[in-house]
Amino acid sequence: MRLAVIPGDGIGPEVIAEALKVLNEVVPAAEITRYDLGAARWHATGELLPESVLGELRQHDAILLGAVGDPSVPSGILERGLLLRLRFELDHHVNLRPARLYPGVRSPLADPPEIDMVVVREGTEGPYAGNGGLLRKDTPHEIATEVSLNTSFGVERVVRDAFARASVRQRRHLTLVHKTNVLTHAGSLWSRVVEEVSLQHPDVTVAYQHVDAATIHMVTDPGRYDVIVTDNLFGDILTDLAAAVTGGIGLAASGNLDVTRRNPSMFEPVHGSAPDIAGQGIADPTAAVLSVALLLDHLGEHEASRRIEASVAFDLATRDHQSPGATYAIGDRLAALVSSNVRTG
Amino acid sequence: MRLAVIPGDGIGPEVIAEALKVLNEVVPAAEITRYDLGAARWHATGELLPESVLGELRQHDAILLGAVGDPSVPSGILERGLLLRLRFELDHHVNLRPARLYPGVRSPLADPPEIDMVVVREGTEGPYAGNGGLLRKDTPHEIATEVSLNTSFGVERVVRDAFARASVRQRRHLTLVHKTNVLTHAGSLWSRVVEEVSLQHPDVTVAYQHVDAATIHMVTDPGRYDVIVTDNLFGDILTDLAAAVTGGIGLAASGNLDVTRRNPSMFEPVHGSAPDIAGQGIADPTAAVLSVALLLDHLGEHEASRRIEASVAFDLATRDHQSPGATYAIGDRLAALVSSNVRTG
Ligand SMILES: CC(C)[C@H](C(=O)O)[C@@H](O)C(=O)O
Ligand SMILES: CC(C)[C@H](C(=O)O)[C@@H](O)C(=O)O
Repeated sequence: MRLAVIPGDGIGPEVIAEALKVLNEVVPAAEITRYDLGAARWHATGELLPESVLGELRQHDAILLGAVGDPSVPSGILERGLLLRLRFELDHHVNLRPARLYPGVRSPLADPPEIDMVVVREGTEGPYAGNGGLLRKDTPHEIATEVSLNTSFGVERVVRDAFARASVRQRRHLTLVHKTNVLTHAGSLWSRVVEEVSLQHPDVTVAYQHVDAATIHMVTDPGRYDVIVTDNLFGDILTDLAAAVTGGIGLAASGNLDVTRRNPSMFEPVHGSAPDIAGQGIADPTAAVLSVALLLDHLGEHEASRRIEASVAFDLATRDHQSPGATYAIGDRLAALVSSNVRTG
Repeated sequence: MRLAVIPGDGIGPEVIAEALKVLNEVVPAAEITRYDLGAARWHATGELLPESVLGELRQHDAILLGAVGDPSVPSGILERGLLLRLRFELDHHVNLRPARLYPGVRSPLADPPEIDMVVVREGTEGPYAGNGGLLRKDTPHEIATEVSLNTSFGVERVVRDAFARASVRQRRHLTLVHKTNVLTHAGSLWSRVVEEVSLQHPDVTVAYQHVDAATIHMVTDPGRYDVIVTDNLFGDILTDLAAAVTGGIGLAASGNLDVTRRNPSMFEPVHGSAPDIAGQGIADPTAAVLSVALLLDHLGEHEASRRIEASVAFDLATRDHQSPGATYAIGDRLAALVSSNVRTG
């Protein structure tokens, strides 16, 4: 197993260290190459993602990323030039974001139900395409555009993936989230594709919700969701909210998948580089560890993946959430649990 | 005071009846003209918003709208052809949406702080412009686009309005919500305008949040928000979420304002036509009543507006939230409170 690791900025390197500690318990033979992409490299060299590095990254089975972003870098530079560039260059069309309320974890909701959903967020088009521009900048007549690009090809592959995931889950329920009553062009394409693909999945029940209504139900009735499929921007918004109601982005893992496997998929915690707590050794590495579980699952190491997830579940059920411990201590605990081979319930 | 009233579909007419009952207590001389726009008219005549009706609407001081939408009408028809057309034709550039957690109201949050924010949502551009289209429809090469249009003119006027509102509030705090790290063109325009206008408001502190992070804080720390200014789509999403954490869209009022007063402004509950409960007389008219309060405030009837809001606050603090009463009963209660001239605390 050849893994490329991009620790990145802020707490990225801190949580990645613990994630690798845990990985080492299940796949000690993994071959790991580190890449120093991120704010420091950009400051030092002006480079974001050199072609040569991109070429090397392609030679790996998967990529593990900590977080990128630093207040010293103007907004958008690292996001568009590094993180999104990786997702687009490596055709990460399925942005997979499970949200589960683990026993023992405190939700900000007063009366949280069981929550166990997977958001399948499109990853390579929509308003993230980078299409748009500025005209008459800095004049009273300035116009700024952002073009959401949606293709039959792009929508269909992510919708197919979402149905496939829904059909092997217990509830077999899929919700399309969009804003079809306003974004009628893109909405029409998304609705038609979901309808067509649903014909091949009579076992999966399908619902539709406008994105604004979905945010309401995410706090009043999140238990209703099983699999959600949605576009890049709505998925960005909904997965942060889903993470919030299931205990915070400190626990949320994600996979940026090229499901054709032509390119390595990339796994990363949903949280950012958190410059405010960086360097203190207090970041929770759980999301990074869960990202390793997603990575292993994607690479076919299902048993190892389950062991890690079960260890996290056990730790979350038993940890003192007021003082969960330092970053390294949580990593140590999880590594020990994984090596002692905890079984899922 | 000449008011145009569009009761609309579903529970629209039910809640409007109560809103007018309350209005009658404070402005008995209001001259009211009803317009039967909505699903029924569309089915009967194919008309959504005839030019002649639009011309008549323009002759009023303000418009009160119940809700439009019905499952029998394909998605988008009434929204784009009636509701959004009104907002665009009447240049409702400030979509004002207060969200306040009234004492006595149960939030879905476990530990809700004091919440009292106003979202100033841009109302006439962004992804709502209707710009975009379909190419090669129903082929494997279909492309759907949605173009977000943002102009210096459009952004500046709403940002100015938001600062003006912030500067007369107690906390004098304004948060720009956008996604500047991804939507870099529109994000750059919004950020620059906020920065420029802020120079004229040294009394207002300014913060920025990405829309995804804002949804997190909306459930973990909503008390931080005072005035939020944001684009049409982000505002749509955030205000539903803000309504959810402050007790639901059953209580959320909104004003679609042309702050230049060249066109009548339009006031409506944030909730929809709720076809599932229509005709049962159980819809909560509170949001419609609060919309009347916003309407009166806009027309300079500040004292009448305050009386209505104080009556709603009193009713919410004392009502039995398990069985708040039928639609007409809530309306009766609020009308009685208003006429007995309750004072704010
Ligand atoms: C950092 C940013 C570009 C990114 C996104 O918008 O996709 C992040 O919010 C995420 O969800 O992974
Ligand atoms: C019905 C719909 C077009 C509308 C919107 O998206 O603005 C509604 O959600 C709202 O918030 O008033």
